[in-house]
Amino acid sequence: MASSTVSFIIIIIITTVLLPSLSSQLSDLFPSNNPPPFLGKHSHPIKQPNHHQQYRYETRYFSQPLDHFSFLDLPRFRQRYLINTEHWVGPSRSGPIFLYCGNEGDIEWFAVNTGFVWDIAPRFGAMILFPEHRYYGDSMPFGSKEEAYRNATTLSYLTAEQALADFAVLITDLKKNLSAEGCPVVLFGGSYGGMLAAWMRLKYPHVAVGALASSAPILQFEDIVPPETFYNIVSNSFKRESSSCFDTIKNSWNALRSEGQKEDGLKQLSKTFHLCRELTSVQGLSDWLDSAYSYLAMVNYPYPSNFLMPLPGHPIREVCKRIDGSPAGSSILERIFNGVSVYYNYTGEVDCFQLDDDPHGMDGWNWQACTEMVMPMSSDQNTSMFPAYDWDYSAFREGCQRDFQVTPRPRWITTEFGGHDIEHVLKSFGSNIIFSNGLLDPWSGGSVLKNISETIIALITKEGAHHIDLRASSTEDPDWLVEQRATEIKLIQERA
Amino acid sequence: MASSTVSFIIIIIITTVLLPSLSSQLSDLFPSNNPPPFLGKHSHPIKQPNHHQQYRYETRYFSQPLDHFSFLDLPRFRQRYLINTEHWVGPSRSGPIFLYCGNEGDIEWFAVNTGFVWDIAPRFGAMILFPEHRYYGDSMPFGSKEEAYRNATTLSYLTAEQALADFAVLITDLKKNLSAEGCPVVLFGGSYGGMLAAWMRLKYPHVAVGALASSAPILQFEDIVPPETFYNIVSNSFKRESSSCFDTIKNSWNALRSEGQKEDGLKQLSKTFHLCRELTSVQGLSDWLDSAYSYLAMVNYPYPSNFLMPLPGHPIREVCKRIDGSPAGSSILERIFNGVSVYYNYTGEVDCFQLDDDPHGMDGWNWQACTEMVMPMSSDQNTSMFPAYDWDYSAFREGCQRDFQVTPRPRWITTEFGGHDIEHVLKSFGSNIIFSNGLLDPWSGGSVLKNISETIIALITKEGAHHIDLRASSTEDPDWLVEQRATEIKLIQERA
Repeated sequence: MASSTVSFIIIIIITTVLLPSLSSQLSDLFPSNNPPPFLGKHSHPIKQPNHHQQYRYETRYFSQPLDHFSFLDLPRFRQRYLINTEHWVGPSRSGPIFLYCGNEGDIEWFAVNTGFVWDIAPRFGAMILFPEHRYYGDSMPFGSKEEAYRNATTLSYLTAEQALADFAVLITDLKKNLSAEGCPVVLFGGSYGGMLAAWMRLKYPHVAVGALASSAPILQFEDIVPPETFYNIVSNSFKRESSSCFDTIKNSWNALRSEGQKEDGLKQLSKTFHLCRELTSVQGLSDWLDSAYSYLAMVNYPYPSNFLMPLPGHPIREVCKRIDGSPAGSSILERIFNGVSVYYNYTGEVDCFQLDDDPHGMDGWNWQACTEMVMPMSSDQNTSMFPAYDWDYSAFREGCQRDFQVTPRPRWITTEFGGHDIEHVLKSFGSNIIFSNGLLDPWSGGSVLKNISETIIALITKEGAHHIDLRASSTEDPDWLVEQRATEIKLIQERA
Repeated sequence: MASSTVSFIIIIIITTVLLPSLSSQLSDLFPSNNPPPFLGKHSHPIKQPNHHQQYRYETRYFSQPLDHFSFLDLPRFRQRYLINTEHWVGPSRSGPIFLYCGNEGDIEWFAVNTGFVWDIAPRFGAMILFPEHRYYGDSMPFGSKEEAYRNATTLSYLTAEQALADFAVLITDLKKNLSAEGCPVVLFGGSYGGMLAAWMRLKYPHVAVGALASSAPILQFEDIVPPETFYNIVSNSFKRESSSCFDTIKNSWNALRSEGQKEDGLKQLSKTFHLCRELTSVQGLSDWLDSAYSYLAMVNYPYPSNFLMPLPGHPIREVCKRIDGSPAGSSILERIFNGVSVYYNYTGEVDCFQLDDDPHGMDGWNWQACTEMVMPMSSDQNTSMFPAYDWDYSAFREGCQRDFQVTPRPRWITTEFGGHDIEHVLKSFGSNIIFSNGLLDPWSGGSVLKNISETIIALITKEGAHHIDLRASSTEDPDWLVEQRATEIKLIQERA
């Protein structure tokens, strides 16, 4: 696998946000009624030439039914999975199987960004499996992405339940073929993949003995957590670094709107923000900024990283330094530009910025967000640095009907997987799930942050961001991260 | 609801066995490669004119998605459910909701034959709900049974997973409308309905706090229990009453074959067995006998009952009395006829017997048996009184392909719901399930017969038959049954 190919695929598959098409109707204050997807269009994983040397795996394909829950005579599809057995001690010694629940993207990207699994497999004598999520990467029904994403009918089998069944069928078959039925399966997952890991442990306890669900916002549905949660956490991450930085961003939206309304305003904005093409509305720019702040909060790691973008350590601190430290006399929008350049241009290689302004891209996560994964989002005018916005399900639904010809089922996820009263429910049912969260991560607000029982554990790190614990260990790891991983290893050892 | 209508519907919907079409290819020894379905074509529930007075309920309908697990734009269907709230103490007092998981038949039939739920609801202050299983009774997709059962495409959504999701969606919606989110749901179910109750507790622990799964053979799949189990239990139930009765039945199959091969043999058999129409092969007769023995074992209750047929108490004892006590000089087949007449004609009202010989009926349970519910069955020549037969999956599959144009997924149920190593799996996961079984019931062999944990309990009764504990209490109840129900009530009280 050439890593350039990988990166190329990633860029192709990353999702576009639904915002532009919807929010333009809602207000001219650039509100967001959707959070950035876990992997958004404004994330650009860079080439990582060493990874295919660092992690060795075989790429295989498994024939899956397109629909596990009906007996329609449908074409099967090839699910890709990556496998490494070099450390596996095999069935005779009950060697565990570490299965990473592939999420909304090319599985190779997750494989190389989930160093934790690779790091710990040798000491467990574990097999490593990275099955890809259907409709992403190289696991396309109907033979190609073009066909799979053609319309609502071909996309209709892109659901979490089908993906979990894919994992269950694959691992059951694989274990049988290896006479490894007695080998325990431990699930791993981050972000949406973490949700899948937790749900899989709940729905398929006979398939997997436990799960590490990192940054998994399984409570970000319906009315379980307040809809302001996400943007409040992003905002707090900025405020915590600098209240003037927070204020500048909060005030910038009006500045942006005023500028946009001026004659030649869009031209001027395009110039200020070094855009390659002139803006046709302020909306695209607003979304571009919104995404940067949200992603910065997600990857606000304490050391340099390149998960979504090449970034310095503590990137929000860096952004605020540039916003606060812009030359005296800088306009508010110039300050903002200096700040977000940390996210979009840390390497300094970008001459001008491309705003992806295709709001109707039939991309996977948008489909999922418009069907099952309905995560209500608001922005509170008192606590958020983003434009005020109240979650408007009707407008959201109309957008989905227009863009995908599909009607969301906003209550389905909690009906199928639960979430309400989760402490009480899981206390008497379920076991062996670690919910790990960094409180800098805006998705942490929708995750499980309290121990539920002796074996359903919440590991919280105050300084952690989006599934940092799943990343490869490095010499730059702070003590709390080293400790967190040690605890995770201990918990896994007790079960696997 | 007129009870005559109910009975009529029951007779219409009861399933036909797949045997005739398959076994004729396999051997001329009349083997069975399928057990009788839970509700077979040879069960004829009689009119029960008092039941609609005995149990009062309202009949309602709920709009369900045909497919919960995809976003195909499909027509919704009306799921029927029966509801009684007269004893419910309501949300303010956390009144429990007793939900019977409707199985493969008209829900009114299960409602009137599940007296236990009605008997105990008042003392719990419980609401009673009997949702019907999709594709049965009055809950037909596409508007009618004719349309729903038209072909493999229209039938394709007749699966246990979809039925469980129906229950989950219905109860979630109902509770929300009643502001009764805090009210515990307790599941009940017998036979296939018992399987659904157990699986629902495992898959939807956030929806239901516990389940009483009576006579639920959740282990009758793949290689979990030996395939001879079912017919061995039937056979033992006869041997236990009389070894000569057992021997007569065991020897009758050859007598049947010999007679059938004679010139005018079919005519003579038709006469011996008082058939209304002359046999065209011995297969139909063989299946008719096979079903009688199997159903007798299922409903071998210690008191007169009319669940499948009007029968005396200890009906197998009665059958064997007639077989053993036939006039001296009676032929083996005459003895057999005298015996099975207990099952088919206990009231003495039948002048001649109709053998349903439509082997291709597109009936619901046969579809389910040909898709998910693949239960391997053999008949051991040493221990069974039935013709010897080794389970032949290939022949079974071919029969399903021929009859339904569908290919079974024999390993799907264990992948989706588990079953292998169930003690170990459920010990650390799951809670609050009672598996109740009577050891006279041939389905008990495929159920859970050992306590798994402190809250996953097996209640075994030596003299019990197919879900007798779910029947209404009566003055004829033996002590062990009274005690069993008291234990069940106590266990439910601890959780609900």
